[in-house]
Amino acid sequence: MSLIVQKFGGSSVADAESIKRVARRIVATKAQGHDVVVAVSAMGDTTDELIELARSVTESPDPREMDMLLTTGERISMALLAMAIKALGVDARSYTGSQAGMMTDSHHGAARIVDVSPDRLREALDEGAIAIVAGFQGFNRDSKDITTLGRGGSDTTAVALAAALNADVCEIYTDVDGVFTADPRVVSKAHKVDVVTFEEMLELAAAGAKVLHIRAVEYARRHGVTLHVRSSFADKEGTLVVATRGENMEEPIITGVAGDLSEGKITVVGVPDIPGKAAEIFTIVAGTGANIDMIVQNVSAAVSGLTDISFTLPKTDGDKTLAALREAQSTVGFADLAYDDNIGKLSVVGGGMRTNAGVSAQLFTALFEAGINMDMISTSEIRISVITRGEDLNRAVSAVHTAFGLDGEVEAIVYAGTGR
Amino acid sequence: MSLIVQKFGGSSVADAESIKRVARRIVATKAQGHDVVVAVSAMGDTTDELIELARSVTESPDPREMDMLLTTGERISMALLAMAIKALGVDARSYTGSQAGMMTDSHHGAARIVDVSPDRLREALDEGAIAIVAGFQGFNRDSKDITTLGRGGSDTTAVALAAALNADVCEIYTDVDGVFTADPRVVSKAHKVDVVTFEEMLELAAAGAKVLHIRAVEYARRHGVTLHVRSSFADKEGTLVVATRGENMEEPIITGVAGDLSEGKITVVGVPDIPGKAAEIFTIVAGTGANIDMIVQNVSAAVSGLTDISFTLPKTDGDKTLAALREAQSTVGFADLAYDDNIGKLSVVGGGMRTNAGVSAQLFTALFEAGINMDMISTSEIRISVITRGEDLNRAVSAVHTAFGLDGEVEAIVYAGTGR
Repeated sequence: MSLIVQKFGGSSVADAESIKRVARRIVATKAQGHDVVVAVSAMGDTTDELIELARSVTESPDPREMDMLLTTGERISMALLAMAIKALGVDARSYTGSQAGMMTDSHHGAARIVDVSPDRLREALDEGAIAIVAGFQGFNRDSKDITTLGRGGSDTTAVALAAALNADVCEIYTDVDGVFTADPRVVSKAHKVDVVTFEEMLELAAAGAKVLHIRAVEYARRHGVTLHVRSSFADKEGTLVVATRGENMEEPIITGVAGDLSEGKITVVGVPDIPGKAAEIFTIVAGTGANIDMIVQNVSAAVSGLTDISFTLPKTDGDKTLAALREAQSTVGFADLAYDDNIGKLSVVGGGMRTNAGVSAQLFTALFEAGINMDMISTSEIRISVITRGEDLNRAVSAVHTAFGLDGEVEAIVYAGTGR
Repeated sequence: MSLIVQKFGGSSVADAESIKRVARRIVATKAQGHDVVVAVSAMGDTTDELIELARSVTESPDPREMDMLLTTGERISMALLAMAIKALGVDARSYTGSQAGMMTDSHHGAARIVDVSPDRLREALDEGAIAIVAGFQGFNRDSKDITTLGRGGSDTTAVALAAALNADVCEIYTDVDGVFTADPRVVSKAHKVDVVTFEEMLELAAAGAKVLHIRAVEYARRHGVTLHVRSSFADKEGTLVVATRGENMEEPIITGVAGDLSEGKITVVGVPDIPGKAAEIFTIVAGTGANIDMIVQNVSAAVSGLTDISFTLPKTDGDKTLAALREAQSTVGFADLAYDDNIGKLSVVGGGMRTNAGVSAQLFTALFEAGINMDMISTSEIRISVITRGEDLNRAVSAVHTAFGLDGEVEAIVYAGTGR
């Protein structure tokens, strides 16, 4: 008998009908003879609505209380899901993060998992029941307080449970058929990929592919949990995320093309070109907690002795980073700050890049021929990213997708949901 | 330093503005030098909305999962309230029923409190914080599951905390100024009573006065917790509920007049007038879990050897009780069933009745003079109840209120809220 962990996101349990549909799917898996543990997100936009409620009470909600508040979202959906399964005649029990043994550190709002002790889940499985676990939440043993795992929390809950229970596979249900060569909403001829490696998936997630959260992929990679990304709307195979492809499986040069419009670019203008200035600037940026992505230092203009430093970061970190830099302007001694929030990041990812030269040239040619200007460039072993104008991004992704021969025969199916 | 437990109901925390107002009131109490523990209900109609959600998933929701679902309501309000208090610069921490040490039996949906171990609350108070506790919920130690206390649960939470913490007073905040001689929405000249005894309050609650739940009053009486029923909209003294009035305080003959439209009347027609038949009928009724209130057995008609038995019960228990009786019709051998859901129950309550004869006569005269017919009559040591037609009830309450000299000088203030 195998053990399967299934994760359903907010759009899969958005209303009573959706919950009943998910319940039928879980029961079908159980009927195939598998043990089933389910991790579930809050219904639809519940979490956003709770955040809004908190902000209408106070501008800066207490982090402990915020976690107490937000964790109710998953408790509602898990209880409803357990009810729906029981109504189908199959035993099911819901468990909070604490009851499921999801122990975390005490960092409210972004807690790290320190230990998973799923004794009650094992007990439920031994008694033939399906265990439903609230995603996104945990419990700190020292403070005895409820915590949340932060962004991508429910994916991480599912993967952590799969690791702790030594599950055969962790199925991540979403509103697309799996991992695609590009966002099917942007590139209509994008096609589903059958297998990707953790490494490629991490690069794709970092490049803006939203299908899986980078943190969950990293946890799965570290614990050797096989992921299966598949549709909650159709009953077909999705994409397996694995450590390595089978021996006889050819490694594609390019696995996918990702586009990301969530970043902005800060340019620090007129920085004295003397040692230590870059370190000084990025120490200030790090102090704000902003996640910087790409960095470019322009060639110094010899006559002036000044240089420009540009970097990209999530738009949500833009204001606080600009404020911190502005405050330090006289100390650091730069001339000016520029902020560009209309940029797009295009990335091509593929394990085959390692053994294939000329990918950059092919990428730059494709963009040139499409008449798209590049700004910054950054590369990793299996990824190349470039910055374009925001309005050029979708066209650039399509052009590159075609240039690398990724276009499929048929148009990709996009289901009703608008996210996970 | 004294310790005050305050309870705020759903209408007191219905939205962000209400929550902020309640937060200011709690902080004001703390500023007067008191330790404060707060029990809070779910926001507005949250509980009803969650019940509806469950019913849209399945017609008979699993009781354990129902408790898991419903307890989220109080967790939302308590977290928001704690945030609002912290935003005022005063330390506050919210606690679930389990965290507050509210241990119950395992009866989901109507759990009884078996033990209260408020260690974490004491800790919070010792550190100068205000403790906010989710009303209505508890925890069963054996099953490790979350439970709910059922109807009137948040009042009971407050009283149980007051008892366990040996609080000086348990303040129940509501949308009226206290306990009134009659419902001010029905009798405009009803006036607030300064003091009532537990005994009177129990009779008033049983008679349909909604200001306090009977279970909470009973808990307070047994543990000697002084209750203070007061308005969350105005800052004035409300009604104290105490074990006995002060020695020099005159005991009023009538403390209040209550009206109740929530009951229906079942008449079992043509019951064989032989010993044991009434017992047979009420055993069937008891088997449905229905709470019967008043019972009248009509004088037997000697010629037929048949009699009628009537009893009142909550309308919500009507259907299932009728069904159970109908099923047993041939066994019991009665002729017919009649159901009247248009009745009103009028009760007069007062500790002084014990030592004052003639209260019944005065009551019946008042009703007669107002042209109101009575149907059933029942009495306890300090209460007389009669059944009227539903449409006559409010007029009857007003007439009796006047007849017993309870009319005040001024009209009672009714605040915006429509319930607790």
